[in-house]
Order: sequence, then structure tokens, then C-alpha cells
Amino acid sequence: MINAYAAKEAGQPLEPFEYDPGALQPDEVEIDVLHCGLCHSDVSIIDNDWGITQYPVVPGHEVVGRVAKTGDAVRNLEVGQLVGLGWHAGFCGECGYCHSGDHNLCDAPQETIVGHHGGFADKVRARAHSVVPLPDGMDLAAIGPLFCGGITVFNPFVQFGIEPTDHVGVIGIGGLGHLALQFANAWGCQVTAFTSGSAKEKEAKELGAHHVINSRDPKAIEAAAGSFDLILSTVNVKLDWNLYLNTLKPRGRLHFVGATLEPLDLQVFALIFKQRSVSGSPVGSPATIATMLEFCKRHGIKPVIEQFKFSKVNDAIEKLKQGNVRYRIVLSHD
Amino acid sequence: MINAYAAKEAGQPLEPFEYDPGALQPDEVEIDVLHCGLCHSDVSIIDNDWGITQYPVVPGHEVVGRVAKTGDAVRNLEVGQLVGLGWHAGFCGECGYCHSGDHNLCDAPQETIVGHHGGFADKVRARAHSVVPLPDGMDLAAIGPLFCGGITVFNPFVQFGIEPTDHVGVIGIGGLGHLALQFANAWGCQVTAFTSGSAKEKEAKELGAHHVINSRDPKAIEAAAGSFDLILSTVNVKLDWNLYLNTLKPRGRLHFVGATLEPLDLQVFALIFKQRSVSGSPVGSPATIATMLEFCKRHGIKPVIEQFKFSKVNDAIEKLKQGNVRYRIVLSHD
Repeated sequence: MINAYAAKEAGQPLEPFEYDPGALQPDEVEIDVLHCGLCHSDVSIIDNDWGITQYPVVPGHEVVGRVAKTGDAVRNLEVGQLVGLGWHAGFCGECGYCHSGDHNLCDAPQETIVGHHGGFADKVRARAHSVVPLPDGMDLAAIGPLFCGGITVFNPFVQFGIEPTDHVGVIGIGGLGHLALQFANAWGCQVTAFTSGSAKEKEAKELGAHHVINSRDPKAIEAAAGSFDLILSTVNVKLDWNLYLNTLKPRGRLHFVGATLEPLDLQVFALIFKQRSVSGSPVGSPATIATMLEFCKRHGIKPVIEQFKFSKVNDAIEKLKQGNVRYRIVLSHD
Repeated sequence: MINAYAAKEAGQPLEPFEYDPGALQPDEVEIDVLHCGLCHSDVSIIDNDWGITQYPVVPGHEVVGRVAKTGDAVRNLEVGQLVGLGWHAGFCGECGYCHSGDHNLCDAPQETIVGHHGGFADKVRARAHSVVPLPDGMDLAAIGPLFCGGITVFNPFVQFGIEPTDHVGVIGIGGLGHLALQFANAWGCQVTAFTSGSAKEKEAKELGAHHVINSRDPKAIEAAAGSFDLILSTVNVKLDWNLYLNTLKPRGRLHFVGATLEPLDLQVFALIFKQRSVSGSPVGSPATIATMLEFCKRHGIKPVIEQFKFSKVNDAIEKLKQGNVRYRIVLSHD
């Protein structure tokens, strides 16, 4: 049996939940959970904001743990190995995207917390090809948030060929944004943080920003017209996107990793005249996660975390909803 | 003196207009106009739809002609040479974009018909670096529309690394779209035309489309979900863009060359989950125009035109406004 925390209905607090995972499949591993990050998308799934939740839902998709069992067909992982598990607990393995190493774009992936029980538990199962070994010597408590928040903001640097000579802006300095600043700085870029209010200015600079622009000051944003090759938006609220479009250089890209529900009301002329792009992306593939972990280790990139015990998971969720986490919550077993 | 056709005010018909172009500048050439295409953006400028018109305005930016005079500093063009002139009659020559060969993204370009008199005239002036020599043996009457309509739809294939294995959709089979179909087919792609009504189905296939989808049939568009690497929108009206977003494959691009004035109301999730992009671009650089002309010659790509005499320019504009040109109007001298 697996001892987990689950929500039985939308908006309900999590409660202890025991389930029988059945026989271990040949391509699966079972992981003893050590730590698990708490991500905004856990809350969105608990509350069924996206209409795809299957109850009871066991959240948790930023898992760090140790392989406890391996299925008969598993060749890439061993019992006792330290591993991480992110948004995906399996891929079809057979579509063109899987065949090309783009598992994150798989036609029929298995999400870790949709139709599958996640990492807010003592154990979690996943198909071995979605589980990534950890490099030696990293801080285990802090590594979990790299598996969703981290890869979400790292992957665009890989996908869109961002150059160390590029000027990069990051909108929203929270769970994702505080990692994006570290990545952009280590990538060699000129880095600007867009953040509301001046409270986070000093912290943003410590995290790697060379400049900070107050996102509540339209004049300051206007003054940055034509400045950026890439802007990463990590927020899930509506901003004046056309104002940000105009801060892009010719060929610049406004890229969304924050899942804002309101449509983007973009002016076509701002795209046409300067050959600009607007885009989005989900998490990355297992291979890109491995690349990210190695990059993090080399550059000392590390999530800034607040730790809670698993038994305090509802307090952690409440704190996340209040919006003043600096910068990512991690749940740990006693 | 130059004998031209000009609009004196927004919405007025063109009338004969004589002007003194002054001394030829050292870096300029004067071109004897043979033919000039009529583009939707000529009408937008005549009517001041974009708020940037300077009256009196001499439209015309799809010029084919012969070099009549060269300034003292001109080394790349000779008197008597057949040339074309498009949207740009000059570039600053000094910004990073000009230095990189991306003149079309120049910080301070000289548009041919904004603050400068265009090609609806017996002669037109331009800075020599914006004027492109024609390959031998092309149909002079038909070549003009390549210099704006053509390059506008050719340039995205170059800029975004479109591959011959890609699946390409073209929305709107008019002045731009009928060229986009020819380019996409010659590029080796699988080509789909989105067009309203069945009248153009046969013609779209003759122009290079392998498939035709009725753009007024939402179910037919829905059925094409996940099909395209690139969709080029050449229309200037609002469509259900989220419907088209969902016809893109993962990593697909919805690209705007048609200047629709209504904002795009895009769903962020459709971008994020499949790593899709939305973008726009203007015309291309002189080097890309030269590349396009060579490609057109090799593949027999040619605008389908209706010819008018320059003296009938107002009739031509009226016909364009009625929207039933197949597919591009060219004005010619008697």
C-alpha cells in the first residue's frame, strides 16, 4: 500500500489517503519519496481549474527520491539510485515526438497527477523512461522544484537557441521566475527582472538580474522599447501584453510559461513590422532535464525553498495561495 | 520633372501630379518605370488607414523599370539595367540590422510611398542599395508583384527555416496567397489552401495546393487538428485564430503577413501545451529579394496578373477594393 495525501473533491483540503498501486509493471519503477516540491499547477489540479482533474487526486510532481523497486524490463535505473520525477510519469514511447527525443511533446503522455497518483506520498510509481537520475553532490531538499518549475523556464533557452549575447527579460519573480533569472545569468545573457513593486529588487539582483523594471510602471516599460531578444512570462494574470511586445527587438520573442487563462489581445502590427514571435512551451524532455541538472550543478543554480513537513501540506498550500512564498515550497518526510 | 499620379487627401481618387525631384543624390538612381503592381497597402496608404500617410502621396511600390540615371557614388547599378523596387526605397545603412544584411528590419528605413514618391509615375528615385537587378528572361509585366506581395510570403520560408518536409497551410488565396501556394509547392512542402467558398478550389490546386479546406467550415478546420508546421495568414480580416492554432502540430507556427487591425485573441494554453508560436513579418531584405527572383525563375513561379494602363489607375483601385482580382493588378505605361 502507498500512503499519500489526496483531495477527494475540488477545493477540498488534502487528507491522508491509502491506495494499492497493484503489481509493478515491467517498465515501471517505484520511488521512495524523500522530498516533493509544491507547484502552482498542483493547486490548479486540486481545484480543477483546468477541468481535467480526476478525483481522488494525489498531487506532487517535483519528486526527489530513491529507487525502491524496478520492473523486470527496466535497464536504466537501479534500486537505491537517487532520482527525480516531474510532470510526466510516462510517455507513449512510440510517436514521432518520443522517437525524436521530444517526449515532452508526446501525443499521449501520462501526467504524474492526472489519472495517476503523484508524489505527495511515501512512494510513487512511474515508467522508468520518465525518471531522471540525479548528479552526485546536489542538495536533495532543494532539487525537486527543478523538475517542473526549473525545466519549464530552462527548456525555452534550449528550444529557441537563446545566445549568451541575448538580452532576456523575466516577468514575475516567483517559483519559476527566480530560477529563470539564475539560468539567464549563467547562460551569459543580459538579464532584466520585471517585478511589481520594489520589494523584490534587491533579491532579483542577487538571483542574477542586471536590471529591474517595475511592472506596475507603464512608462518604465515603454522606456525599454526595442530592448529584448526574449521575454519569459511566468505569471498567470493578464498584463498589457502589447506594451511588452514593444519592448522586444526585431526578431524578439515573448514566451509564455505561465498559464494565464485570459486570451492574449495582441496587435498584429507589432508582430509584423519587427518580425516578432509570441509562443509558449510546457516542461522539457528527460534528456533536457538531465542537461539542466548538469548545468545547475556547474553553475550553483538552486531553487530558494521554504520547507514544510508532508503532514503540514494544507498549511503549505494555504501559504502558496497567499502568494508570498520565497520562492518555492518543498514538502519533506519527517 | 516627374509625371505621377497622386492622392491629395485621404479617400480621394488619384490625379495627375507633376513634381520636381531635385538633384539626384550620389547614392540614388532614377528608374524609368515600365510596370508597377497595385498592392492592398497602396490603398491603405491612399486612405490613411494606418495614420502614417503624407499627402500628396504617390503610391506604387512594386516597380519594374530600367535605370535611367545613377548618382556619382553608385557602383552596383548601371544605366539601362532592368531593376525592381519594392516597399523600401532606402535604408539607414548604419544600424546593426543593415550591417547584418537584415535591411528590412532597419531602424530608420525610407519607405517608397511614405514621405517619398512612389512608382505610379514615369520615373521614380531610390537609393541604389534598395534596388534589385532582375534576372534575364523573366516576364517584365508580371515581375512587379514579387517585390512586395511575393517577398512578403517568401521571406518567412527563409527566416523560419521551413523544410521541404513541412506541411504548410495558406489562409486567403489572393494577391499574396496565390504566390505563397506556388512558393510552398516549389519548396517541396505539402500544401493546403484555406479559402472561403469552393470557387477558388480548382485554381488553388493549379497554383500548387495539394489540399483545399473551406475556411467557412469550422468542422473541416477542426478535422485538420495537429496537421501543420506553418500556417501563413495573408488575410486582413478577423478569423477564429484559436481554431487555426489547433491545426498546428507541436512546434507549429501561425504566421501573419496580412495586416489585420483587430487584436488576436489567442488562448495561451494552445501555445504552451504544444510549444506553438504566433508571429509576423514584413517584406524581406534586398538579398532575400534577389534569392527569391532566382528561385522564381528556376521554378517558373509567376504572379497571375490583370493589367491596366496607368491612366486607368482609379479603375484599378476600384476593382481591387471590390475584392475580385485574380490575383494581382499591374499598371503599365502605354
